[in-house]
Amino acid sequence: MKLIIVGGVAGGASAAARARRLSEDAEILVIERGPDVSFANCGLPYHIGEMIPDRNKLLVVTPERLRERFRLDVRVRTQVESIDRANHTVTLRNLLTGITSQEHYDKLILAPGAAPLRPEMPGLDLPNVFTLRNLQDMDRIKQAIDAGTKQVVLVGAGFIGLELAENMVHRGIQTTVIERNPQILTPFDPEMTTPLAATLRQHGVQLKLNDSTRAIRTGPDGLIVELASGESLPAQVVILGIGVRPENKLAVDAGLETGPRGGIRVNDRLQTSDPDIYAVGDVIETVDFNSQERTQVPLAGPANRQGRIAADQVFGRDTRYRGTQGTAIVGFFGKIGAMTGSSEKTLKRLNRPYLKAYIHPAHHASYYPGAEGMTLKLLYDPDTGKILGAQGVGGAGVDKRIDVLAMAIQAGMTVYQLEESELCYAPQFGSAKDPINMLGFVAAGRLRGEHPQINWEELAAARDSAPAASGLVPWVVDVRTPLEYAKGHIPDAVNLPVDELRQRLHELPRDRPIVAYCQVGQRGYLATRVLTQAGFSVNNLSGGYQTYLLHHPT
Amino acid sequence: MKLIIVGGVAGGASAAARARRLSEDAEILVIERGPDVSFANCGLPYHIGEMIPDRNKLLVVTPERLRERFRLDVRVRTQVESIDRANHTVTLRNLLTGITSQEHYDKLILAPGAAPLRPEMPGLDLPNVFTLRNLQDMDRIKQAIDAGTKQVVLVGAGFIGLELAENMVHRGIQTTVIERNPQILTPFDPEMTTPLAATLRQHGVQLKLNDSTRAIRTGPDGLIVELASGESLPAQVVILGIGVRPENKLAVDAGLETGPRGGIRVNDRLQTSDPDIYAVGDVIETVDFNSQERTQVPLAGPANRQGRIAADQVFGRDTRYRGTQGTAIVGFFGKIGAMTGSSEKTLKRLNRPYLKAYIHPAHHASYYPGAEGMTLKLLYDPDTGKILGAQGVGGAGVDKRIDVLAMAIQAGMTVYQLEESELCYAPQFGSAKDPINMLGFVAAGRLRGEHPQINWEELAAARDSAPAASGLVPWVVDVRTPLEYAKGHIPDAVNLPVDELRQRLHELPRDRPIVAYCQVGQRGYLATRVLTQAGFSVNNLSGGYQTYLLHHPT
Ligand SMILES: Cc1cc2nc3c(=O)[nH]c(=O)nc-3n(C[C@H](O)[C@H](O)[C@H](O)COP(=O)(O)OP(=O)(O)OC[C@H]3O[C@@H](n4cnc5c(N)ncnc54)[C@H](O)[C@@H]3O)c2cc1C
Ligand SMILES: Cc1cc2nc3c(=O)[nH]c(=O)nc-3n(C[C@H](O)[C@H](O)[C@H](O)COP(=O)(O)OP(=O)(O)OC[C@H]3O[C@@H](n4cnc5c(N)ncnc54)[C@H](O)[C@@H]3O)c2cc1C
Ligand SMILES: CC(C)(COP(=O)(O)OP(=O)(O)OC[C@H]1O[C@@H](n2cnc3c(N)ncnc32)[C@H](O)[C@@H]1OP(=O)(O)O)[C@@H](O)C(=O)NCCC(=O)NCCS
Ligand SMILES: CC(C)(COP(=O)(O)OP(=O)(O)OC[C@H]1O[C@@H](n2cnc3c(N)ncnc32)[C@H](O)[C@@H]1OP(=O)(O)O)[C@@H](O)C(=O)NCCC(=O)NCCS
Repeated sequence: MKLIIVGGVAGGASAAARARRLSEDAEILVIERGPDVSFANCGLPYHIGEMIPDRNKLLVVTPERLRERFRLDVRVRTQVESIDRANHTVTLRNLLTGITSQEHYDKLILAPGAAPLRPEMPGLDLPNVFTLRNLQDMDRIKQAIDAGTKQVVLVGAGFIGLELAENMVHRGIQTTVIERNPQILTPFDPEMTTPLAATLRQHGVQLKLNDSTRAIRTGPDGLIVELASGESLPAQVVILGIGVRPENKLAVDAGLETGPRGGIRVNDRLQTSDPDIYAVGDVIETVDFNSQERTQVPLAGPANRQGRIAADQVFGRDTRYRGTQGTAIVGFFGKIGAMTGSSEKTLKRLNRPYLKAYIHPAHHASYYPGAEGMTLKLLYDPDTGKILGAQGVGGAGVDKRIDVLAMAIQAGMTVYQLEESELCYAPQFGSAKDPINMLGFVAAGRLRGEHPQINWEELAAARDSAPAASGLVPWVVDVRTPLEYAKGHIPDAVNLPVDELRQRLHELPRDRPIVAYCQVGQRGYLATRVLTQAGFSVNNLSGGYQTYLLHHPT
Repeated sequence: MKLIIVGGVAGGASAAARARRLSEDAEILVIERGPDVSFANCGLPYHIGEMIPDRNKLLVVTPERLRERFRLDVRVRTQVESIDRANHTVTLRNLLTGITSQEHYDKLILAPGAAPLRPEMPGLDLPNVFTLRNLQDMDRIKQAIDAGTKQVVLVGAGFIGLELAENMVHRGIQTTVIERNPQILTPFDPEMTTPLAATLRQHGVQLKLNDSTRAIRTGPDGLIVELASGESLPAQVVILGIGVRPENKLAVDAGLETGPRGGIRVNDRLQTSDPDIYAVGDVIETVDFNSQERTQVPLAGPANRQGRIAADQVFGRDTRYRGTQGTAIVGFFGKIGAMTGSSEKTLKRLNRPYLKAYIHPAHHASYYPGAEGMTLKLLYDPDTGKILGAQGVGGAGVDKRIDVLAMAIQAGMTVYQLEESELCYAPQFGSAKDPINMLGFVAAGRLRGEHPQINWEELAAARDSAPAASGLVPWVVDVRTPLEYAKGHIPDAVNLPVDELRQRLHELPRDRPIVAYCQVGQRGYLATRVLTQAGFSVNNLSGGYQTYLLHHPT
């Protein structure tokens, strides 16, 4: 067996290492265009920011180590130029000498990754306008930063852009992030990004949403970035982080099937339309585990595991790829955003029925010092209660809850099962009823009809669509304390603290739907129970005033 | 409906709050012997240690709040003295006035908790000999500590004992822990406690295993604790934390069925042998979710959720209790021990076939600063790969992995599914192949026959039982570097670094079984692959030298 692997980083190196473990006899070539294999792409922003001071730390494994330990024929600075499928050969070009050569293969694994998107825009080729994908990009950026950069403009508020923002601030650089969309981190639902955007701003990052770069030109102080809004921003360094496109040229030239966004199409064996060619990582189109839609998810976890599966397939193990679930996380300035499964946006686009729940728990018992707050959002099926997706934002412990929910989604669990989950509890680590249980209670209570809920969007729509006097507009009652109410409340809400509710039922209308709310939803829920049993028509505002605030960023 | 609840803390208060939400009409009495309801038992050690300086923080909810918000008839300092099942009445005694009275009930929920065990021993009633269950116990202990205690003896190295140890050290007190068993934290498998015992000792805690208290007497400096070993320890304060027994007197007197260890027997509706009486929390015997054995697990999470279920049952919801999974966690001095599902001990006792895997990963990408180490142990079914139990010890991130595995156990997942889990990855939070995936790889590799493994105990037994020259004793090869080998190795192991193995195959015996090992198991695994394919009979030592060290505490 002669196996050739194109690309030697996440997917490629994983495939190669696994391949060698499966076969000592096989001839295994790893062809990598760059000078490094198996490096830590995900660490690049942190070396720029000097949070990882030692560059060598990013070289997880060297070509020598791969040769020695795994007896791989690793060829760096060598590019695969083309694939001749009929003859089972690839053409290689040594990038140092320029010499090309042919290599026969029995099986080929493509792991060439993806390339940063570069929009059509004047000035893109100016010095100090960068993208970030590998160590060389990183070195160039770091050099420019070290040379005394005072201002940086980051184009795109995606994962990499925001990680860079944290690192730039860490270096004391004035940082502006430009984002075309009305929200940062587009995979997330917009309201869930509110606290993260606030965090960025609190740390001095200038965030310009709903704006985009029109051109970059040189100016007295380095560069000038012109925005669609008309604004011009001076900067010494500009970094584009607006997404990636699959490095599919080889595959397209060879006539392999690709999807509409360019990803190489594979089956669940990760086999392309040519059965002797496999493809893994950022270059492929995968199936979404949740929706079974075709999708492209350029993340390291899937790339690594796909590499392993492709090697299995080459050596006769029938391991399958179950699809990508969409688990992702980003952290900056001590805050975390994480998600798994489908977003609300996606469910809407797919016309998939869903319900949602919001909670705002502390990450551990609030009586123990250091409890940090978070918001969790759960999306679930209205009929079966099956969990469809989850998102979390906040401080410590968000990653844990999203990982737990990632397992629940993988296993096809329901919100009823979350009610019964038995998770670690001591005061430093959680609560006797963990946030995961709470999500289960809130969601299952809705399905059982015990806890009628209304989302802010629904309440807003009802207020907008019916004339105020029609009797159809919900009467909104704020069941918090007068002090909480005074600090800020939903317009036109009447304050009536939950602890007085039973005595003051006569103050509530019987001819109109009522919406109750509190700070996070819990007292609103009790109010809903009290009022329902007293014959009122009432819903609890899901997630309370805190969720309302998510929808109303200041 | 008139519902009476006996006990007003974790299980009782949860049942009461839920009951009120389900029914505004019901008459709900909560009878609590102590002055407080709904307090944070789990926080008690941390107030003694002044990590939670404000005592009020431990009062999660006051009786007034329960009355006001939930319209509960809360009677503190009132003891339920007896139950008259035939007449559906209970006798209450007001502990302030001594006056007794009768109350009728339609349904009764028993949540009286458990009492600390007190061994038969001279000196138990001396002043400054304590147990810790409630705020009054805490106040007494804290007072004694504040009065200038220099030395404390803690009897029992269970969860509470070790939490107390941390807090005593935090107060600058010389702390000795006496444990009858050869290990701390008996629910854990012994080798998993090795790093935790080391942590205690590093922080100055004197740990005396395999020893027990024989008597306590007064001495010149307060108390003297006499040990079975003959040693005598001076102390000003002694605290017993050797476990609890169900507060079952009421139930026993009323003729309700109890189990061999005293727990009230309930069905999955949490109904006792009297269908109008439910019981929840530390007082009950539950079913082990994993083994379906009867068990007693006195923890707050189960107590809280059981309270909710009992209320559901009383008000006609058919919620069931799925059994207790045994998820538990303890933390001290920045280290964590956590577990879920069955331990190896339990599986052995039940004669349940199992396999185990050990890994020693970092809690996040090792190239990002601050990665902390941990050891994870997974127990799984040899036929189906179903996950039976898991334990983790180490620093940050242990709680996350055990929670993730708790979900996997709840869902009945297999090790093959762990290979496919898609968890949060960015360098601060995990690894592209998360420790959970790694556990899956190692365990599934064994089941697939690709990764033959031997446990240290098996290797030790093979060495002990066969004469060295018989050809049956495994030949042990240490595939680490000479430097690692020089720092410490398994006796009689031959050093042959993995990277040289392929060239030096002739140095290995073909007539004897071989065991390969490295630091954590990964290079040993590669060696195993190389050797197997070269025709040797070889096993990888599960978890490598680090697991060996767990079995050989210094
Ligand atoms: C700055 C940054 C931060 C990131 N952070 C995270 C994170 O926190 N979490 C996460 O999950 N993911 C993160 N990612 C994404 C993650 O790195 C990728 O998903 C993953 O590396 C994809 O693996 P791959 O093997 O498909 O491609 P790559 O790892 O990019 O490897 C592809 C390799 O193929 C080589 N190649 C391409 N074409 C050829 C050719 N024709 N001949 C020879 N060689 C070729 C390329 O030079 C490249 O080295 C980050 C990425 C970047 C850039
Ligand atoms: C110091 C300490 C630390 C702990 N740490 C943890 C931890 O970190 N994690 C964890 O999961 N668990 C922990 N626990 C255990 C947890 O607190 C218990 O599992 C939980 O409180 C049990 O709830 P329960 O309702 O059954 O009993 P309890 O919470 O003990 O409540 C029972 C109440 O019933 C009252 N009562 C008893 N008999 C009568 C009667 N006849 N009449 C009237 N009232 C009566 C008692 O006064 C008591 O207040 C800890 C316990 C202690 C003591
Ligand atoms: C304080 C105590 C009485 C509260 O019980 P509770 O009212 O059931 O409230 P919890 O805080 O546990 O919250 C659970 C309820 O709030 C609801 N809830 C939680 N978050 C919500 C939100 N954001 N929106 C709406 N409802 C929410 C849940 O659905 C659940 O109601 P349900 O059981 O009817 O479904 C009880 O938990 C207790 O005594 N705890 C402390 C004592 C203790 O546990 N000690 C041992 C451990 S230290
Ligand atoms: C370095 C690299 C080549 C290593 O690949 P690998 O050899 O498969 O090794 P990993 O470190 O991923 O470990 C996985 C293997 O070790 C085994 N293993 C892990 N822990 C083990 C233990 N304690 N005992 C025994 N075996 C163990 C696993 O079973 C698995 O082998 P398998 O696939 O045959 O089942 C590859 O992971 C890589 O290039 N990573 C860095 C690049 C990257 O991912 N960049 C993007 C993210 S920053």
